[in-house]
Amino acid sequence: MFRTGPRNLITDVAGLSVGNADDARLKSGVTVVLCEEPAVAGVQVLGGAPGTRETDLLEPQNSIEAIHAVVLSGGSAFGLDAASGVQAALREKNIGVEVGGFRVSIVPAAILFDLRNGGDKDWGRYPPYRELGYAAVQAATAGFPIGTVGAGTGALTFGLKGGLGSASTVLDSGVTIGALAAVNPTGSVTVGRSRHFWAAPFEIGDEFGGLGYPDPMPEDARKILLKYRDRHVGTQAEGGSTTIAVIATDAVLTKAAAKRLAIAAHDGFARAVWPTHTPADGDLVFALATGSSGIELSADAAIDLYAAAGATMARTISRGVYAATPAEGDLFPVWSSR
Amino acid sequence: MFRTGPRNLITDVAGLSVGNADDARLKSGVTVVLCEEPAVAGVQVLGGAPGTRETDLLEPQNSIEAIHAVVLSGGSAFGLDAASGVQAALREKNIGVEVGGFRVSIVPAAILFDLRNGGDKDWGRYPPYRELGYAAVQAATAGFPIGTVGAGTGALTFGLKGGLGSASTVLDSGVTIGALAAVNPTGSVTVGRSRHFWAAPFEIGDEFGGLGYPDPMPEDARKILLKYRDRHVGTQAEGGSTTIAVIATDAVLTKAAAKRLAIAAHDGFARAVWPTHTPADGDLVFALATGSSGIELSADAAIDLYAAAGATMARTISRGVYAATPAEGDLFPVWSSR
Repeated sequence: MFRTGPRNLITDVAGLSVGNADDARLKSGVTVVLCEEPAVAGVQVLGGAPGTRETDLLEPQNSIEAIHAVVLSGGSAFGLDAASGVQAALREKNIGVEVGGFRVSIVPAAILFDLRNGGDKDWGRYPPYRELGYAAVQAATAGFPIGTVGAGTGALTFGLKGGLGSASTVLDSGVTIGALAAVNPTGSVTVGRSRHFWAAPFEIGDEFGGLGYPDPMPEDARKILLKYRDRHVGTQAEGGSTTIAVIATDAVLTKAAAKRLAIAAHDGFARAVWPTHTPADGDLVFALATGSSGIELSADAAIDLYAAAGATMARTISRGVYAATPAEGDLFPVWSSR
Repeated sequence: MFRTGPRNLITDVAGLSVGNADDARLKSGVTVVLCEEPAVAGVQVLGGAPGTRETDLLEPQNSIEAIHAVVLSGGSAFGLDAASGVQAALREKNIGVEVGGFRVSIVPAAILFDLRNGGDKDWGRYPPYRELGYAAVQAATAGFPIGTVGAGTGALTFGLKGGLGSASTVLDSGVTIGALAAVNPTGSVTVGRSRHFWAAPFEIGDEFGGLGYPDPMPEDARKILLKYRDRHVGTQAEGGSTTIAVIATDAVLTKAAAKRLAIAAHDGFARAVWPTHTPADGDLVFALATGSSGIELSADAAIDLYAAAGATMARTISRGVYAATPAEGDLFPVWSSR
């Protein structure tokens, strides 16, 4: 029931491409998911410190049914500019919903907090995120890299660098589900300080190291290990975190079902990060349903889809940390050096 | 950081008592949490099939700040009558918020689906839940039993009987947090068909068997095992499930913080049940803050509280299944016989 798509990336969902743009000195960046055709979409916010744009229109009772792109960005609230850059790039391609003779691109966006990661944030009047958003659209491709790229460039977790993760699952129904996450939680993705990922039971092959669980569980497994508490960069209250993600499928879903898919994917956060959904994390999930498979799921098969959403998200989060690479001025080491 | 309160029950939060009433022939029942003083409250619904009463007033922007009791009931939507019985009992005690010279008791309630569990549901015009609710108030005590009692009487999970669970945690800050759950999910609380609970990393002592995780993980660990799919009682789509729960603390919380506590406790569902929050589960958590400790938490200490909410809920869910006892006509065996 759980096998990966050919790339083990969100782009295994046909009709999606992903572009990254980032700046090593800034220690931050932008990731965009482009929808070849407008995709039915939803969102669920469960963290306590979200930063978002165009999320209200995603509620099932609101009018817009489908969207053109989703943006994940570093930069805290300044990073919301990235969506403006994506809109500019989409306008040049004449992509948008027609409203009174104009084409308006619908580009929901969310940010993570990476201001305290040691990068140069002294950008003056114009934050760089608008231009990074524009550049990310130009870079969009099916075979994008993960790790220290795009919105995951400056991401940190408890004791380890975070990163951009992605994974996919092909279900018995023929439906593909894929996930993308910029992984920057205040909590830990590993069991205590071990090399073992919390999401180990859901790992396919050795996609994030293949280590399984430690046996016995270490003493610090259930200890509440927090990023800024560990590093003593001020107090936890002063420092945001946040994991922002996209779950996507080629199944045919209603807008309400897309919201349920976003809810289901949050269980992957809980399986991959401890603790998660805290007041310092603006954790949220966007859901995209391209419908490109043409498959409408029975109520029973839909439960499998939602379950796979959680499992795929848990793997995605782990893969983001697993793939991180070192860079100058890093506050935390990468997983591969632990 | 993780030790239990003296009873390892939600009633370790001072000012709360719990009453159960149930009927073996009905294979169902009611559990009530009574608040000695009105408690600040919140709710978060994440399952797809909720059945509720008085949840809208719990939103932070609405007027009622504190409530008098919470009801968990079997009986699907018919079980919402239980709250009426609780209100009748509270009126006799003159408990309620004064509105224009009247005392109105505020009693949010949620139900789980146990109609297909083999009990006698042929109750005619008057469902028995109103009287069970009244009886549950009379039975309220600090030292209540868990397992096959109250709202957990007819509960089922994948392959095992469910039940009523409870647990508590005392934090370093001196704050106590407790949880209560009627555990009736469509998914599995054990790793595949093993005896090992998913929540094992959070277990304190041997409160649910002390078995830890299986090593290696069994082949079916990540298989999507569903209650009605396993038993072939019709199709999954036809059968509801639902885990309904209460998380409580003696910390001083705002109404908004109580909602965040409810959100945080849902991570315990994800850690204890796979899959959870499905369209067939009306999973929800009520949060109660009695303020009886007088302790107001810093932003940093609040993160510990929310993390402990998830851990305590995961233990509570496992303890409900662990404590289930066999009864005539059961569709599923109890954990202790596996």
